[in-house]
Order: sequence, then structure tokens, then C-alpha cells
Amino acid sequence: MSIIEIKPIGVVKTKHSDQEVSNSWPEGVEGVLEIFQEYSEGLRGLEGFSHLIVLAWLHKVSGDQRNVLKVKFRRFARMGIRLEELPEVGVFASDSPHRPNPIAISIVKLRKIEGNRVYVSRLDLYDGTPILDLRAYTPFYSLSDFRIPKWYRDLLKKTRK
Amino acid sequence: MSIIEIKPIGVVKTKHSDQEVSNSWPEGVEGVLEIFQEYSEGLRGLEGFSHLIVLAWLHKVSGDQRNVLKVKFRRFARMGIRLEELPEVGVFASDSPHRPNPIAISIVKLRKIEGNRVYVSRLDLYDGTPILDLRAYTPFYSLSDFRIPKWYRDLLKKTRK
Repeated sequence: MSIIEIKPIGVVKTKHSDQEVSNSWPEGVEGVLEIFQEYSEGLRGLEGFSHLIVLAWLHKVSGDQRNVLKVKFRRFARMGIRLEELPEVGVFASDSPHRPNPIAISIVKLRKIEGNRVYVSRLDLYDGTPILDLRAYTPFYSLSDFRIPKWYRDLLKKTRK
Repeated sequence: MSIIEIKPIGVVKTKHSDQEVSNSWPEGVEGVLEIFQEYSEGLRGLEGFSHLIVLAWLHKVSGDQRNVLKVKFRRFARMGIRLEELPEVGVFASDSPHRPNPIAISIVKLRKIEGNRVYVSRLDLYDGTPILDLRAYTPFYSLSDFRIPKWYRDLLKKTRK
């Protein structure tokens, strides 16, 4: 199947270093989604939603890291679980940034919009990250009837100790 | 900013026609996410989750449709609201498939996995749609503390009449 070409619609701006952003999970940091001028009209109606879904291209993920198919949940490691306790699973069962197509699905909190600048908090993306798409977080994304496996529930429980 | 190149990890298979898929919202149809053999190891651990998030490239969206910046919510039209009643908003406030980068964020229900074939229901993607990424739907995606604007709430209410 052929290659798909995507043109970013904007870029993430934050004053925080990559390390600070990584360590901020799950709270996240403050930052700005700078939408390129040619797309700014597409932001109309976005104010009034409290949260946005950002699709972003994790440009710092290397070619080697894109070949990874099994991962440990580093996100849980940041939440206090020792790496040895983490199961190794397929990338598609995880939200590891190291995956064949390193696209982030980030849910951020909308603070305000000024022209083409979308001010957000709860951001977990590095400064300079290309933005592929942006949309309002609506009830359609908020499931209540979903199930997760026991090993995942156990991990969650440990982080809540 | 430069173009980003993405290689699909699989393809959507469904026996339903495009029209049937479109009309099936919000229930969706049954289908298979056929993950290319080279990535099938990445599926390990996915069984046990009830829902998956599929990022897919809406390959039938035309170049002209990618230039659209203001849209009517056709999804609501399908749910019984007349087109004249629908407000025109920016694409980023909508989940219209007509957007600069037509990437779908589809939440599907996992039925079973056999090798590299992921059987799902609640599918709203056409047969042949390239899959960019796949991940488990976890509590991190399920917000409870989000707000939506009044105009959106009013639309939702009308569909529930």
C-alpha cells in the first residue's frame, strides 16, 4: 500500500523542556497550539468546549523506535511502578510513542483562543511537535461501557496506591 | 513545515457498501481490521479490551474536500436533524471527514482477534480504508469532567427526541 502524505496544520509551542513535559504526566503542562494562518478559520465554534483532541506527529521518535512492536508501559513507570513490574505487550495494546506511526492522541484542556493561537493546559507534547488535526472532545469519545483486562486494571490500581 | 510520510499498518475490510456504512451511524457495522503481517506481533495483549481506537486515513476524501474549513454537522443530519437547523462551524470544532488531514478517530468494539485479523463491530469506516494506528481504549480517553457548548448540547437533545 502506498505512502500517505500529511501536511501539518500547526505546531505545539511550550516554554517547558522535553524532560519537563515527559515528567508532567498525568497533569501535563501549559502551552499553545499554533494553528497555521491558512487554517485559522477552522477554529470557529471551538470555544465553549472544555477539552480538545490533538493528533500530533511525534517527530522525535526515531526510525528504530518506529520498528518496536513490543513495549513496556513507561507511562505507568512515571506513575511510580517499577519497570520490572510492567508487562511487555504489543504496541497496539499500549499508547507508547514508540510505534510504527508515532501519532499522539492527546486530550488537552482548552483555556482560550486568540486568533490562530489555542491556549491549552494538560499538554503532554514537546515544543515544536507538528499538529496533524484538532477536534472538540464530545460525548461520542467518552465511553462508559468499556472493559479493560485484569492486568491493566491491576496496573491502574497500583498507581492509585 | 515539511510533509510527513505515513505508511499504513493495515486495511479495513467490511462486506457492507460505503452507503450502508454511512447510514449505520451511530450503531456502525461489522468488519475486520486486517493488520499487515509484519505488524501482527504488535497486537499482543489487545484481547481483553472491549473497545479500540482506530486512526484511519479517509482515502475517499478528495483534495477539494480537504480545503473545506467550515462545515455543517452531517452526522447530526443522519440522526434526524434537518440540514437547515445545523449551525456552520469550523472543521476543527467538528468531526467531519472533510478536513485538511482526513484522519478518522474511530472507536470500535473488539469482538475477537485471529492472527492478524481483528474482528470488530460499531465500525464506521469504508471497506479498503487504510489504517494508520490502533490502540486500546483505556480510562485515559474517557473523560467525565468535560463541557460542551450550548449549541452542541441543543443538537444532542434534538437527536434524542
